[in-house]
Amino acid sequence: MMSTQHTQEASPAPEARTPLPRVSAEAPFTAVIFGASGDLTRRKLVPGLYALYRDGFLPDRFTIVGVARRELDDQAFRNQMAEAIREHSRIEVTEDTLATFLGRIRYHVSHLDEPESYRALNEKLNDTSVYPANRLFFLAVKPELMSPVVQGLETGSLLYPIRDARWSRVVVEKPFGRDLASAVALNRRLLARLDESQVYRIDHYLGKETVQNMLSFRFANTIFEPLFNQHFVDHVQITVSETVGMESGRGGYFDDSGVVRDMVQNHLLQLLCLVGMEPPSELTARSIHDQKVQLLRSVVPFTPDRIVRDAVRGQYQSGLLDGEPVPGYREEDRVDPDSDTAAYCALRMEIGNWRWSGVPFYLRTGKRLARRVSEIAVQFKTPPLQLFQTVECDGDVCDLTRAKPNVLVFRLQPDEGISLQVSAKRPAMQLMVENVRMHFGYQDTWHKSLPEAYERLLLDVMRGDATLFTRSDEVEAMWSIVDPILHAWEGHRKAYPIAGYAPGSWGPAEADALLQRDGRAWRNPGAPG
Amino acid sequence: MMSTQHTQEASPAPEARTPLPRVSAEAPFTAVIFGASGDLTRRKLVPGLYALYRDGFLPDRFTIVGVARRELDDQAFRNQMAEAIREHSRIEVTEDTLATFLGRIRYHVSHLDEPESYRALNEKLNDTSVYPANRLFFLAVKPELMSPVVQGLETGSLLYPIRDARWSRVVVEKPFGRDLASAVALNRRLLARLDESQVYRIDHYLGKETVQNMLSFRFANTIFEPLFNQHFVDHVQITVSETVGMESGRGGYFDDSGVVRDMVQNHLLQLLCLVGMEPPSELTARSIHDQKVQLLRSVVPFTPDRIVRDAVRGQYQSGLLDGEPVPGYREEDRVDPDSDTAAYCALRMEIGNWRWSGVPFYLRTGKRLARRVSEIAVQFKTPPLQLFQTVECDGDVCDLTRAKPNVLVFRLQPDEGISLQVSAKRPAMQLMVENVRMHFGYQDTWHKSLPEAYERLLLDVMRGDATLFTRSDEVEAMWSIVDPILHAWEGHRKAYPIAGYAPGSWGPAEADALLQRDGRAWRNPGAPG
Repeated sequence: MMSTQHTQEASPAPEARTPLPRVSAEAPFTAVIFGASGDLTRRKLVPGLYALYRDGFLPDRFTIVGVARRELDDQAFRNQMAEAIREHSRIEVTEDTLATFLGRIRYHVSHLDEPESYRALNEKLNDTSVYPANRLFFLAVKPELMSPVVQGLETGSLLYPIRDARWSRVVVEKPFGRDLASAVALNRRLLARLDESQVYRIDHYLGKETVQNMLSFRFANTIFEPLFNQHFVDHVQITVSETVGMESGRGGYFDDSGVVRDMVQNHLLQLLCLVGMEPPSELTARSIHDQKVQLLRSVVPFTPDRIVRDAVRGQYQSGLLDGEPVPGYREEDRVDPDSDTAAYCALRMEIGNWRWSGVPFYLRTGKRLARRVSEIAVQFKTPPLQLFQTVECDGDVCDLTRAKPNVLVFRLQPDEGISLQVSAKRPAMQLMVENVRMHFGYQDTWHKSLPEAYERLLLDVMRGDATLFTRSDEVEAMWSIVDPILHAWEGHRKAYPIAGYAPGSWGPAEADALLQRDGRAWRNPGAPG
Repeated sequence: MMSTQHTQEASPAPEARTPLPRVSAEAPFTAVIFGASGDLTRRKLVPGLYALYRDGFLPDRFTIVGVARRELDDQAFRNQMAEAIREHSRIEVTEDTLATFLGRIRYHVSHLDEPESYRALNEKLNDTSVYPANRLFFLAVKPELMSPVVQGLETGSLLYPIRDARWSRVVVEKPFGRDLASAVALNRRLLARLDESQVYRIDHYLGKETVQNMLSFRFANTIFEPLFNQHFVDHVQITVSETVGMESGRGGYFDDSGVVRDMVQNHLLQLLCLVGMEPPSELTARSIHDQKVQLLRSVVPFTPDRIVRDAVRGQYQSGLLDGEPVPGYREEDRVDPDSDTAAYCALRMEIGNWRWSGVPFYLRTGKRLARRVSEIAVQFKTPPLQLFQTVECDGDVCDLTRAKPNVLVFRLQPDEGISLQVSAKRPAMQLMVENVRMHFGYQDTWHKSLPEAYERLLLDVMRGDATLFTRSDEVEAMWSIVDPILHAWEGHRKAYPIAGYAPGSWGPAEADALLQRDGRAWRNPGAPG
């Protein structure tokens, strides 16, 4: 039962209405995609740009340039992109908007490690009758090509000086380094040539509506913020579970990085920031990043002792999934048969600040788990006085049970929404309470498909809003948290054993023990009711 | 989207289940209804007793005795009651349960003001083979007969001594007095013959599920209680609005009492208690009543000056309702054409205790208003920092608006439920928040018809649980609050004018001004979305 709230007063006549501020990108631009033949370009970037175009968010003049090694002409590239859009577009594709959109697309052949090809690109882009002067460089390339491309941007004179009226911005895809040292080095290289304000490090989780909603939920309402602290919160659980294993050759990339680099260092720690950060003093990138960095720096460091106690790594075993045999992690395609890479990870974190001291944050993520779910659950303490009998009912059959705590759940996927578990009196001839759910769901409320995370992030780059991107000190603070774990785990199986878990389960018993030790248990999220 | 909460753990096998405590009335009893020919008996009492019987809440042995002046035999009275049950039963009537239930009913002819008829009744009831020894006396009589009946109970020796193993309990219907003095006198008369624990003063509002749920909502959850105080609450609104006027001869009774006696002194002040009281130390009648009385005594008294400023009385005018002409209050059947009785009342109350100091409680109730709604709305303060742009949308058309506060609404009727208005990010390419509703509805959740308030209250009398009844000090504290208003208003039209309002409106402009003065506005509750 969800509805948008209607006012008491009659709506003003249409002509009296204050128009909402227009939030499209205003300045003409040229978007240059390095890695134009890759999956990301086909699946996310170009369909996302198309959606922005069709929804009227792009300026009148813009040009998209795909850059890759393969010999193609503009038309051939457009045909590929047309196909990509038809296959991956979130919105319905209309042929006339598609045709005009494709007309804005160009292709440029380039070997990304050859400096002269950048000079050629620059000469081409200098024709501002075709290529508007503002430049957006999207680095959809493998990690090892990131440095050469940044170097090429400089040697090819593709970047404007920082105080130039024209802007040049660089969008960097994950992974951003593979440990603290390499991230620091990459930052140093980027920032030698670019100002922090020109670099947009993408974490596509931050483009999701529910993730952004955590800010509004916490800080646009009066009633949650007073409760978000150690007085009232028992603990927080952050779960990002996946059902996939190493299908489609994913094992090659994954076995080299593992779940801590792939998921924890970026996505899960971003979620930790949003649920735990202090209120920003204004809604600016700078104020929000400052608060996130403060929170990350307050995380109690993972010493070797704490890693033994508070970190669990796991690999799924072979077994049956929906009746079908599936291989164990080490038997997967392109995975080292003796791999010690974590396909699962659970952490017990503590935040040593005034607000959260003594409140554990449990994080977990892994492959081949029971369900694909991403959620943050804030579990509150039970009331100081157990006045009521609590029952748990299945239809009319009820059992007495222990009092249930309130839980506020931010569900990022599937079925994006926010729900609050509360105790309410069960209709009966005595005062018994039962747990019920107050729910607010995006689809129920707004009945429309949500914008793709990438669309929002691309538009923000064009608007020059870095709020939803990761700042250099932030990315380094995140690496600082996981770096000790990565180094401890690498090659030290005896001190830090790898726990096995059944495919389709909720992870290893060792992760359950992590909470049981504290008298708690993982929520194993089911379908929303 | 509501669901009961299912546990993570598998349910225990049926044989392992802890049976819930049985909460039926255990002891055999005789229920004596004085005023058996009245409306209340036909509409509420006997159908309520039937429902309790059919649902297995009554003991094996019980007898119901209707007492009235009219000459009837048992069978004739049973026939009347059968008809009443068929007409007014909340549950489906099955002929076999009805027949056995009717077999438990007797009739006794009595003139309630004649002492000898009580002695005859006592002789009859002393035959415990037909009339189980425990006695429940239901006083469904006019106010002026209350004293004679209580006197008759004593002179007829119908009451047991307090420490007797058999119990005798007296249920008193409203109105309980017509001002403080008469209520004190009535209490004195009752308590001269009965112990406080034997007197059950009914306020049927307290039998409603949502009303009882306010206790559980506040005290079985951790997250609301920390917010229920002057730090976070801006104000509270209690609305009990009715659409009816003086149809069916209601004017005769109503014009003599008015809306303050009829609704405010009992129902609205009960709601005030439940939303404002301190947590009881245990869920006992005594502990709960103690806290209610504490709250009532903390209400800042209505001095003559404050009545001018903070109390509004009104009478509806003649006009059109749904296109049909309706009479004004003073033109109604059986209403004095020069009446100064309030058909509408709005009060601005203050509670002078640590928790609520500075938080106004606005109460209003009246006849011939726009909708029939009873609700309590706790409106929270707006966040200390307005970080977000707030929009109000009608489909895709949005307007900028002021930030909306959180509101927690307890809806007692219609559509019993609890909803929380929160700000959430509207799916869009910028960070704009919109008011949405998190809702929990009884019907959505439990898909069953709620027990009638009377059923619960009757069962509680049989069980000897006085929690949902009004204690003598409580009823006097309530009268103490409204007494100065009643006396000020009576015959002082110049100092305390009577405001007119259009039928089908939300009341007089003077009541709107009461809140406008504080920079606030009444919520005019629409249909739940």
